[in-house]
Amino acid sequence: MSNLQSNPVRGMRDLLPQKVESRERVFEIIKRVYKSFGFTQIETPVVENISLLTSNEGGETEKQIFTILKRGLLPDDIKSAGLISQLIDSGLRFDLTIPLVRYYSNNRVNLPDPFKSLQIGNVWRAEKPQKGRYRQFIQCDADIIGEASNLAEKEIISVTTQALTKIGFSGFKVRINDRRILKGIVQGFGCKKENYGLIFIIIDKIDKIGIKGVESELIKIGIQEESVKKIITFLSKAQKVTDEDKLFNLLPKNIKQEVIDSLKDVMVIIRDISNDKFDIVFDPMLVRGMGYYTGQIFEVEDSDYPVALAGGGRYDKMVGKYLKENVPACGFSIGFERIMSLVEKRGLLPDLNKDKKVLLFDPKKVDNNTIILIANALRKEGQLICIQKKRKNTRKQLDDLARFGYCAFAIVETQIKVTEISFKKLNKL
Amino acid sequence: MSNLQSNPVRGMRDLLPQKVESRERVFEIIKRVYKSFGFTQIETPVVENISLLTSNEGGETEKQIFTILKRGLLPDDIKSAGLISQLIDSGLRFDLTIPLVRYYSNNRVNLPDPFKSLQIGNVWRAEKPQKGRYRQFIQCDADIIGEASNLAEKEIISVTTQALTKIGFSGFKVRINDRRILKGIVQGFGCKKENYGLIFIIIDKIDKIGIKGVESELIKIGIQEESVKKIITFLSKAQKVTDEDKLFNLLPKNIKQEVIDSLKDVMVIIRDISNDKFDIVFDPMLVRGMGYYTGQIFEVEDSDYPVALAGGGRYDKMVGKYLKENVPACGFSIGFERIMSLVEKRGLLPDLNKDKKVLLFDPKKVDNNTIILIANALRKEGQLICIQKKRKNTRKQLDDLARFGYCAFAIVETQIKVTEISFKKLNKL
Repeated sequence: MSNLQSNPVRGMRDLLPQKVESRERVFEIIKRVYKSFGFTQIETPVVENISLLTSNEGGETEKQIFTILKRGLLPDDIKSAGLISQLIDSGLRFDLTIPLVRYYSNNRVNLPDPFKSLQIGNVWRAEKPQKGRYRQFIQCDADIIGEASNLAEKEIISVTTQALTKIGFSGFKVRINDRRILKGIVQGFGCKKENYGLIFIIIDKIDKIGIKGVESELIKIGIQEESVKKIITFLSKAQKVTDEDKLFNLLPKNIKQEVIDSLKDVMVIIRDISNDKFDIVFDPMLVRGMGYYTGQIFEVEDSDYPVALAGGGRYDKMVGKYLKENVPACGFSIGFERIMSLVEKRGLLPDLNKDKKVLLFDPKKVDNNTIILIANALRKEGQLICIQKKRKNTRKQLDDLARFGYCAFAIVETQIKVTEISFKKLNKL
Repeated sequence: MSNLQSNPVRGMRDLLPQKVESRERVFEIIKRVYKSFGFTQIETPVVENISLLTSNEGGETEKQIFTILKRGLLPDDIKSAGLISQLIDSGLRFDLTIPLVRYYSNNRVNLPDPFKSLQIGNVWRAEKPQKGRYRQFIQCDADIIGEASNLAEKEIISVTTQALTKIGFSGFKVRINDRRILKGIVQGFGCKKENYGLIFIIIDKIDKIGIKGVESELIKIGIQEESVKKIITFLSKAQKVTDEDKLFNLLPKNIKQEVIDSLKDVMVIIRDISNDKFDIVFDPMLVRGMGYYTGQIFEVEDSDYPVALAGGGRYDKMVGKYLKENVPACGFSIGFERIMSLVEKRGLLPDLNKDKKVLLFDPKKVDNNTIILIANALRKEGQLICIQKKRKNTRKQLDDLARFGYCAFAIVETQIKVTEISFKKLNKL
């Protein structure tokens, strides 16, 4: 016998039955909530053309693509190829937003307007593997395409927070900001447009490097001293202020009032429907990594978890890359693996297997067709019935069954009828 | 605006919401049936090490692998690489059996014995794209690992046929054979062991090339004239015989009686539980492509479909490639895309969207927060509520909504309470 490696590829994992069962239950809750808001599920191939994946919307993530070799290459093709790009034509998707925008552009005539999309699917990133981080992981994305008003933000935040509370989360915080507020801040403090992107990236690191770190990095990239001073003064005040109105008053006056009013309007309705299970707060330091956001941006923060549980925002300029016109869009993505690690940590899902039963039979005394007929009759009543041969060490067999979630057993040693079967309780170890 | 390609990669497809909804419903039925038999769902990464995928169990399919480039390759690595295999380290799985066996070997201590596995997942094959054939498609596999007796075959055929009947299929046929019967036939007719594989491949083509074709191909590969004569005589008799007992009597006498008895025993119980919704027939010409089968093999045939809807069999020697011992195994795989094309053709799923409602509002007269609160209250009652702005051409908007499965609407033009909302029926176009 040859011995093949039985472990999965580096950074990816096998999911045991118990894990799959709890994940499936959370998927169910998520689907039910999103559907009740009129979202419909779609699916795209996991493979996309390489030109799409490297079109610059993914930022740093584009370096982590699993690329796929062209089919039918000959050794000579390799020798004559100077660049890797000549050997590949596609890759595994690294998020669900880029495929969604392509999908919408491809299928627009067959989709409602506005289109409310739900996607639950794997994405792949060749990140350095580390504890709790995998190279294949699930994202849950909800998006509304075709709604320009803040009705989209309100619905997307409502549905995402409702999904989280239905799963059993509470006490989390939605942080909200607007890219136009961020731009207004750096513009109002005298920064040049070409530096906005870099400045945002530096501000985004404030939790890690602190205000001092932000200051020195801003100076390092050559921002005018006076602007840096104003930004730093703003940030330190913003960090200290606890009153929301005072925070809004700190903003430079060049920011359009309608941008601020729309943000406040979203916060009012979300607070209204939150039933005090979570809160929404304005955070002028919230940036969100992706380059494609154009309006409001938001994140779900839980004090038990080091990074955001969910994140999203408005991206009104992406569809225009495919179609000849821009179509407004707004989305919120749940980090499913993060959610699941908290679900497990907190024991949010009740016992899954409360009605799994097993029929043990002695094949020397009863033929297996008899057992199959009995099991079949019980399954017709809606019961979950497993059949196993009774082993010599029945005690160990029953312990094992209890370990795998079975709750009751019956031993069949004579040709009996289904009505004569009576199950005994299996005690959990 | 740049214009990116919006179509999916060649041979793969975008799934529209209605499609996803019917697929999800069929998944649900399949999962419910398999779980009632004690099968548990597992998941493996879609990417596997290339050594695993090219270990010779996949036959021809191994030529259709989507291979993944190593990460971090430099231009010099390409120049110095003589072979494609030096540039790749993994690929997309082309079936679910090979990953299952790896998974079982990797996780055996954490799995029940016997282990009853259900997998529903995509596989990828770079086949020539054609109508109804896709390069990414779903397989549904049920397997029992660790059961040596024909209890495994009985359960696996029961559960698969029950899933099919629950989806709405009837009148199909399970064809069953045993690799040991096939071997016995060619051995009994004087063929040499090294030719068995080739002979099976030729017999497998009988539906396409006819008995004459089989004869000439057998001669072409150099099988002794006398053996060819005996095989052809057997095949033509077997094709004509309608009585099952007579068919068994045609088999050469070197085949072990216990092999035949076990097959008959499986047929008895499956007929017993079929409720006349389908039949099971012995077919000594059934081969099944894969090289790994060691015992009984089976297929589901529907007269409405040109190829098998499901196929499987016993493979007792595969686990031994990973572990130091062999573990018996038996599986049945449903061709999900084939099932779905018949489900659609026959209209097997009733109307999906019988309770989708929409609230239309005039944003000039009612602010959207009012609508959100109303929708929220209705959703709490379990209703599926979508919110849309009322458009100038309301008639067209309502027609569109009907087209996308909405059944009722209410127009909100004043600040009213949820109790005052009354829905009107939306007529389907």
